[in-house]
Amino acid sequence: MAQNIYDNPDFFAGYSRLPRQVKGLEGAPEWPAIRALLPDLSGKRVVDLGCGFGWASRWFREQGAASVLGFDLSRNMIERARDETMDACIDYRIADLETLELPEAASDLVYSALTFHYVRNFERLVRMMHAALVPGGDLVFTIEHPIFMAASHPHWTMDEDGQKTWTVNGYSIVGERHTDWFAKGVVKHHRTLAITINTLIGSGFELRRMIEFAPTPEQIAEFPDLAEELERPMMLLISAHKS
Amino acid sequence: MAQNIYDNPDFFAGYSRLPRQVKGLEGAPEWPAIRALLPDLSGKRVVDLGCGFGWASRWFREQGAASVLGFDLSRNMIERARDETMDACIDYRIADLETLELPEAASDLVYSALTFHYVRNFERLVRMMHAALVPGGDLVFTIEHPIFMAASHPHWTMDEDGQKTWTVNGYSIVGERHTDWFAKGVVKHHRTLAITINTLIGSGFELRRMIEFAPTPEQIAEFPDLAEELERPMMLLISAHKS
Repeated sequence: MAQNIYDNPDFFAGYSRLPRQVKGLEGAPEWPAIRALLPDLSGKRVVDLGCGFGWASRWFREQGAASVLGFDLSRNMIERARDETMDACIDYRIADLETLELPEAASDLVYSALTFHYVRNFERLVRMMHAALVPGGDLVFTIEHPIFMAASHPHWTMDEDGQKTWTVNGYSIVGERHTDWFAKGVVKHHRTLAITINTLIGSGFELRRMIEFAPTPEQIAEFPDLAEELERPMMLLISAHKS
Repeated sequence: MAQNIYDNPDFFAGYSRLPRQVKGLEGAPEWPAIRALLPDLSGKRVVDLGCGFGWASRWFREQGAASVLGFDLSRNMIERARDETMDACIDYRIADLETLELPEAASDLVYSALTFHYVRNFERLVRMMHAALVPGGDLVFTIEHPIFMAASHPHWTMDEDGQKTWTVNGYSIVGERHTDWFAKGVVKHHRTLAITINTLIGSGFELRRMIEFAPTPEQIAEFPDLAEELERPMMLLISAHKS
């Protein structure tokens, strides 16, 4: 079973105060880039893996999705998502992505934001998602970028030239990474970018588009702190298609 | 026109002493990984972009390729390739990849090793290669990995934990990088991994496989210095297909 850090009280308290949890999708600078990867949603049956408080699940319905199934490991998350959603066509369930099985060929879009780097067995998950999609279906997901999470202790440093620099080491060493983020010992699973891409292709997906998120000049003008995201990508956004 | 650093005498002298130039393909640790990406070569018409001394061009013929057209910007390279090749089915020519045009649908494989990061206009080149291939043709190439070449001054450093660390900055800032390698001011063109992949897909290629080269345990046992390649990928290997 995956680590359920989201039901740790310290973690949940801190996490709930993130701009993207308070403001919803508009609080996430990568959201416009994700939108550009999403297919037309009218009439679509959507699965939202790692749905959290349900921000995206509700947005999919606003865009005309026929139904949304949201899954999250965290009871806290699912309970709040249910409290905040008045829509009989959205169903939230507690589930572990290490073992979740979805009905075959019954979904048009599988979506997931910043969740798959918590999953140990990515290959099983990708095969399951491919089987769950109808032919013509899409998979759109975001993860922490492997450049961001590779190092044993990822952090900013100043190099000898006084240049703000991101530390990368252990990139090709796949496996657990332990980090302190609102709580001690959050467990993530580092995979190289090539492993992520080749797993998708090897499971039958066609890669459509990839975005290593960087803020736009307009975003940097509004939020100057975002400029450091140009130095190294924090997030990887992927769109893949089932033929 | 691309910078022709290879005809700089200092550069050429240093470059010619690299293990991979003295020993040929077996002197390149990534060669077994490249071989795994190559299609069956029997009867194939191959184009080798940045052919250098012709090591790969000759190998393609040994594997049964019908013909090989090798291109390089460097007169030094092409002259030595011609001197060392006794094969009427291999033709070497001086050419600039910024402007090279190949006949349409007349090649089965376009191959290139560690050359495209010297090319400014990658999109033009990719469209030209796609047009040059027959349907069913393949593009297999290697470039310096963007993690390796992103920084304004890419180098190893020691982080505060005493961990050997690669410096990454400016990753999302596309454009020239100037480096000193056998000669001062070698000009390379940094592109993000996403730009490389999306340019291929946008030009009609289907991405088949991607390798961020890392040495095998056997290679590290034989050449312990290679272990540092696990910390960050130096080379990106890509296989793409024209349907």
